Amino acid sequence: MQDITARHFAERLERGARQAEAAGFDGLVIAPGPDLAYFADYLPVATTERITLLVIPAQGEPTMLVPALEHGGAAETRAAGAIRLRDWSDGEDEYVPAAALLRPDGRYAISDATWAMHLLGLQEKLPDARFAAISTALPMLRAVKSADEVDRLAAAGAAADATFDAILRVPFAGRTEEQVAADLDRLLREHGHSQVDFTIVASGPNGADPHHEPGSRIIADGDMVVLDFGGLLDGYGSDTTRTVHVGEPTDEEREVFDVVALAQQTAFEAVAVGVPCEEIDRAARRVIRDAGFGEFFIHRVGHGIGVTTHEPPYLVEGEQHPIEAGMCFSIEPGIYLPGRFGVRIEDIVVAAEDGAHRLNNSSRELHLVG
Amino acid sequence: MQDITARHFAERLERGARQAEAAGFDGLVIAPGPDLAYFADYLPVATTERITLLVIPAQGEPTMLVPALEHGGAAETRAAGAIRLRDWSDGEDEYVPAAALLRPDGRYAISDATWAMHLLGLQEKLPDARFAAISTALPMLRAVKSADEVDRLAAAGAAADATFDAILRVPFAGRTEEQVAADLDRLLREHGHSQVDFTIVASGPNGADPHHEPGSRIIADGDMVVLDFGGLLDGYGSDTTRTVHVGEPTDEEREVFDVVALAQQTAFEAVAVGVPCEEIDRAARRVIRDAGFGEFFIHRVGHGIGVTTHEPPYLVEGEQHPIEAGMCFSIEPGIYLPGRFGVRIEDIVVAAEDGAHRLNNSSRELHLVG
Repeated sequence: MQDITARHFAERLERGARQAEAAGFDGLVIAPGPDLAYFADYLPVATTERITLLVIPAQGEPTMLVPALEHGGAAETRAAGAIRLRDWSDGEDEYVPAAALLRPDGRYAISDATWAMHLLGLQEKLPDARFAAISTALPMLRAVKSADEVDRLAAAGAAADATFDAILRVPFAGRTEEQVAADLDRLLREHGHSQVDFTIVASGPNGADPHHEPGSRIIADGDMVVLDFGGLLDGYGSDTTRTVHVGEPTDEEREVFDVVALAQQTAFEAVAVGVPCEEIDRAARRVIRDAGFGEFFIHRVGHGIGVTTHEPPYLVEGEQHPIEAGMCFSIEPGIYLPGRFGVRIEDIVVAAEDGAHRLNNSSRELHLVG
Repeated sequence: MQDITARHFAERLERGARQAEAAGFDGLVIAPGPDLAYFADYLPVATTERITLLVIPAQGEPTMLVPALEHGGAAETRAAGAIRLRDWSDGEDEYVPAAALLRPDGRYAISDATWAMHLLGLQEKLPDARFAAISTALPMLRAVKSADEVDRLAAAGAAADATFDAILRVPFAGRTEEQVAADLDRLLREHGHSQVDFTIVASGPNGADPHHEPGSRIIADGDMVVLDFGGLLDGYGSDTTRTVHVGEPTDEEREVFDVVALAQQTAFEAVAVGVPCEEIDRAARRVIRDAGFGEFFIHRVGHGIGVTTHEPPYLVEGEQHPIEAGMCFSIEPGIYLPGRFGVRIEDIVVAAEDGAHRLNNSSRELHLVG
């Protein structure tokens, strides 16, 4: 696997400037979070009210405003050679140096997760500047992955595969969702994850809530159990969902499972360079609708993944951006029967000229657990 | 310790509406993060591009916009009885229902950490509405703690005390900062923390960087080591800093330590109801300046703490808001000698009519570790 080096960050900064310029912006305003990790190889110890802000102008030198007491960490990144640092200190009006990095009448694309307080601070100092959220203005800024990034997503996917293989061997019946979720957390870390973002364990009727928070419900024989787990390994994300069954499933449970599996495979096969993102959603939705479960598939079919586990491209009705080679995203249809059970199956894939390739490969059969 | 119940959340919502009204706002716009935990007893599984937004109008019913697939969790909180839920679904323009919760020409105080993309979405739909960051408009919204909150901060402080007592018994010399940081993380969790926010271990010259990220440096005999650790226990924060020494300190190290200890105690004694926040900062700074180290105290003396480990009131030059009974905050002066070492001592205190009371009580002596 290729190391990510200073050169890669310099290339990202230059590519970001060019993409901003091509979209008619004077630059990018990047806040702590995945954008900053991607462009500056940097995350402050904590994202707080103390502003840290990287400005990548369409023309000129990238500059990062940092709290003086965090200068040390900001100066030691792999991207540091390509970014000028500007310190500010407690007691100073931080929006004065922040605004000085921007053109008073400029148009900027700003990180989605920038704190509103900082945007309001900039808007007050620069009433004629215009801001647009990166996800609206430049949604595909980080969407096309380079080979070194796909390698890392595949490594995260392999760790998620190993986690699923291992969780099949733990007991389910008689234990709480929280206990199985703790197992998933531990296994992801044992297989190299530095951060675990979610470990959904949704059993029986809880499976009908797609984002169920694992709780004290005791898993019982006869339960469908949705397992949706992921996090970051070496800075890149994993996100896998598998649905298992405790003991023998009913015919109806098996039917619903098979519909979701077919929808997932159909959407996978619909991935091709140039196809609008929404078509992947439609491909899955058609299968589920034709089987009579259309009203029970209540979310989009997928989302991009990279230095975060949720990012563009979104595979959702209305997203007409075409799939490009190198885009990496989830395909995760589901059926949720309120008060009864749910099924979801999710893989991460990379789009290529010859179609989609899965970056995680654990079994998609209906596994029976104990 | 008093349970926090539905009644407490209803009171917080009502108090929030009254504070907004008194400051001339039409209401509060509350995003995922500490404000939402405080008012709605709710945090989504993850804070993502899918908007979750609570509006607390000055007049009318608090309403929370939630993604349909997260309705389940939002409906099950202790605050649910006092908040109307409004679902939105993938594919819908979420800013239409969000804007419908606000007056088109209203003035709103909005959570600091609201994502900029969401604020921009609201501003686009409601060009005549005006927004101000809560930390600017209503900085003290959550600053005065009720008795049930002070109880919880004291419990978190006691766990931090136990953590410090235990860390004194682990070996320092010959181990990396990261290893000692992992010990702090484990100990905080063993003593009841559900979340660890920071475990700074800054040894030798790294101690001169106040927000040093623990690294691979091997701690050696003769090192000063700054330990700054905290997180959440039962929803409320801890934040303690102690500086220890490996083996015998030099006279200069002991002198710097004593200056910081005196500055900390002096600031502690300066706390009184009605005194401007900045005076607490000045009290500590005066001691350090008089000792000749003024230029090496490079941050404010403290910050509030509650459902987060960093919030108003900020004890910093320029903050003239008076201390009120029930405010809880850190007092944490430090001296940072670049390339050499640093010292910081931090306690959490609650202001009361008879002065400040510490909510953590581990020893503030210079402990020698092995």
